[in-house]
Amino acid sequence: MSLERFREIRREVHEDEVINLNPIQRGGVLTPAARRALVEFGDGYSICDRCPPKTPRLDMIERPPVKSFYEELAKFLGLDVARVVTRCREAMFIALYMLGDRGGYVVLDSLAHYSTYLAVELARMKVKEVPNTGYPEFRVEVEKYKEKIEEVIDETGDPPVAAVLTHVDSYYGNLADAKAVGEICKRYGVPFILNAAYTAGVMPVNGKELGVDVLVSSGHKSWAASAPTGILAMTEEMAQRILKTSEIKGDLTGRSFPVKELGLLGCTVMGAPLATLIASFPDVVERVKRWSEELEKARHFASEMEKIEGTRLLGVKPKMHTLMHFESMGFYKVSQSHKRRGFFLYDELKKRKIYGIQPGLTKHFKLNTYGLSWDQVRYVASAFKEIAEKYGLEVV
Amino acid sequence: MSLERFREIRREVHEDEVINLNPIQRGGVLTPAARRALVEFGDGYSICDRCPPKTPRLDMIERPPVKSFYEELAKFLGLDVARVVTRCREAMFIALYMLGDRGGYVVLDSLAHYSTYLAVELARMKVKEVPNTGYPEFRVEVEKYKEKIEEVIDETGDPPVAAVLTHVDSYYGNLADAKAVGEICKRYGVPFILNAAYTAGVMPVNGKELGVDVLVSSGHKSWAASAPTGILAMTEEMAQRILKTSEIKGDLTGRSFPVKELGLLGCTVMGAPLATLIASFPDVVERVKRWSEELEKARHFASEMEKIEGTRLLGVKPKMHTLMHFESMGFYKVSQSHKRRGFFLYDELKKRKIYGIQPGLTKHFKLNTYGLSWDQVRYVASAFKEIAEKYGLEVV
Repeated sequence: MSLERFREIRREVHEDEVINLNPIQRGGVLTPAARRALVEFGDGYSICDRCPPKTPRLDMIERPPVKSFYEELAKFLGLDVARVVTRCREAMFIALYMLGDRGGYVVLDSLAHYSTYLAVELARMKVKEVPNTGYPEFRVEVEKYKEKIEEVIDETGDPPVAAVLTHVDSYYGNLADAKAVGEICKRYGVPFILNAAYTAGVMPVNGKELGVDVLVSSGHKSWAASAPTGILAMTEEMAQRILKTSEIKGDLTGRSFPVKELGLLGCTVMGAPLATLIASFPDVVERVKRWSEELEKARHFASEMEKIEGTRLLGVKPKMHTLMHFESMGFYKVSQSHKRRGFFLYDELKKRKIYGIQPGLTKHFKLNTYGLSWDQVRYVASAFKEIAEKYGLEVV
Repeated sequence: MSLERFREIRREVHEDEVINLNPIQRGGVLTPAARRALVEFGDGYSICDRCPPKTPRLDMIERPPVKSFYEELAKFLGLDVARVVTRCREAMFIALYMLGDRGGYVVLDSLAHYSTYLAVELARMKVKEVPNTGYPEFRVEVEKYKEKIEEVIDETGDPPVAAVLTHVDSYYGNLADAKAVGEICKRYGVPFILNAAYTAGVMPVNGKELGVDVLVSSGHKSWAASAPTGILAMTEEMAQRILKTSEIKGDLTGRSFPVKELGLLGCTVMGAPLATLIASFPDVVERVKRWSEELEKARHFASEMEKIEGTRLLGVKPKMHTLMHFESMGFYKVSQSHKRRGFFLYDELKKRKIYGIQPGLTKHFKLNTYGLSWDQVRYVASAFKEIAEKYGLEVV
C-alpha cells in the first residue's frame, strides 16, 4: 500500500466546528497562544537554540524562558521545584522508582488510573489498595490510608514507599479529600504523591495546603497543552531524592555527567508540547479562578440529564468536577430494539455535531463539560432530552 | 514578574530565514506535511478520538493510521515490531530495563551519548566501555566488543545484558561498523542494541542486515518530527521481552490491565509529535535514498574548510555522515586577540545569517550540513573563508 496516506492525516473532530465532550480532551484544547507556540517550536530540537553550554539542561534554558517557567509552575502548584516530563505516568514512575526499592509497597486508591498501577509494576513494587464505597457513589475511603499504611508496616516492618491518591478519578470524576490523606501520610512519614491529572490546570490546587510531597499532572489533559507533557512538582526535600544527578562513570574513559538529572534521563520535552504548555500558562493561571462556574455548569447539566427516564449520575453528588459518568437504563432500553444497537446514541449526537461519547455505549457513558459555554451546555442537554423523547423515553 | 512573557515565546532562528547548522537540528526540520499535521493534532489527546474500546492502546488506533504506520516503520528499518516512545533515550532505557536485571553489565562504545550512560545507570546496571582510537580519528574499536563481552563473562559468569553501539556518534559524526558488532553479539548470544539517533531517518539503515536486535532512534533528531519522539524497533523475539504486557493485579479489587505494554506504561506519544512523524514518513522514506548526495556535500564542505589555516576535520575520513567536528587553531588564534574573544566567529556568522555554531567556540566546533542545498553549502563555506581572510588567516 502506498505511504501517501500518511501524509495528509486529519482528525474527524475539529474543536471549532463541533462540541466535543470527550472526557480526556476538554482540558487539553490549546489556547490561541499555544497554537502559535506550537508552530513556532515545531521543528525538532527547537527549544535548544540557546542551551547554556556550562549547564546543558532543559530546565536551565532562559531563551525561551524555560527556567523561569519551571519556577512559576512550582509556585502556582504551591510546591518548591517543578519539571516538565513526557507524561503524567512517567512522572509517577520516576517518583516511585527514585523514592523506593524493588519489592516495596505503594498504597493507592482503588480508583487510580491504570497507568498508576503500571508505574508501580514497572518500578517492580507492589500495590496495597484503599477501598471505595462502590455503587453508586464510589467514594474513596480516604480515612483507610491509615490502616493500609499500618498493614504495610505490620507485614514488612517498613512504611510503604509512598501513598498515592488520585485527586479526581477518571471513572466517576469524584474529588477525593487530599488534605485528609496528606495528614495521615505526614503522621507516618510516608511521601504523599497526588495524581492531579484531572485537577491541576483546571481547578485551584495547592500542594502545600494539601500536604502533598509530590504532585504529578498531565499537560495534555488539563493544561491546554499538546501531548505528551507531564508535570512533576515536589517539595525541596523530595527533589533531593527524585531529581538526584547522575553518578555513573565510564570504567575506561572516566566519562561522567554530574549535571544531568538521572530520573529524567537528562532533558525531557525538548520541543513543541513544552512550548504550548508555557504559552498557555498565563491563561491557565486565570482559568482555574473560574472553576466555580465550571462546577455550576456541570451541576446544571447533570440535573438536566437526570430528567431523562432511567438516567442517573454516578459518583459523589453534588459534582465537584466536570467529568461525569451517567448510567442510563433508558437509552440502554432503546438500544435493545434499535437496528444500530447502542450506536444509535452516537449517531444521533453526531447529527447534532456533538462528539466524544464512546460509540456504542448507552448504559454507561462518560463526558466532560469543562470549558463549554453556558449556551453549549444547554444545547447538549437539550440534544440528549430531544433524543430521549424521539425514542419514547419520558423526560420530566 | 508578569506571566505575559510566556504567551508570545518566539525562536530567534527561523529555518526559512537563515541557515541553521546546529548539529542536532538538521534532521528534525519538519516537512510541509508535518507542519500541517502538527496543527491538526495540536490539541491534547487528539490522536485518541478513535481509540478502539476493546484494545485501548495507541498502537491499535486505525484512524489516524497509527497501527499501519508502526508496521511500515518496522519494515522500513528491517525489523519486525516498532513502537514510538517519547525519546530515543527512553527507548534505550526501556530496552535495557526490560532485558536485564539490576547489577548487570552493558557493553557500550566509548563515544556513546550521555543519555546512554544515564539509561544504564537508571536501569541500575554498569557500563563496560569499548575504547576508541583517540585523537584525531576517534574510531570505535568495534572488534573489541568481543574481548569486552568475554571480560564480563569472566567477571560475572554471565553475558552482558546487551551490547550497545552508537551508529553515528554525536562528537565526531563517525559511522561505526554495526555489522561487525552484530556478528560478535550473535556469536555470544548477546542482544545488540543500535543507537541510530543520527542515522535512521536520514540514511538507509536495515536492522536485519546489520544483525541488530533492537534499534532506537530519535524522531526530532532525524525523522523530520517535533520533539519528543523516540523510535523503538526490534525483532519479534525481543518484542516478547521488551513489550511484555502488564501482570499486576489489585490486591483488593483484582483490577488488571493485560492489554497494556508495561515498559511503555501503556500509551506514549498521544499527540502532535507522533502526527508529525507519521506525516513526514513518506518523505523520510524517499530522502534516505539521496544519502550519497548528502555525503558529497559534506565532503565538499569539509575540504573547503580545511583550506583555512589551522583548520582540520576530526574523526574518520572520508566523512560518512553530515555531522562534522572541526578543530581550528586558526580561528582560535584570532579569538585570542579579538575583543569579543571566541564570540567573534558567532557574530560574523550571524551577520551572514548563519546560525547553529555554539556561541564562543572557535578551537573546536561542530556543525551539520544535512539537508542544505548545494548553494547553501557553498555559501556557508565561502562565509567561513571570508571570515578567515578578514582576520588575516591564510586560505589556500
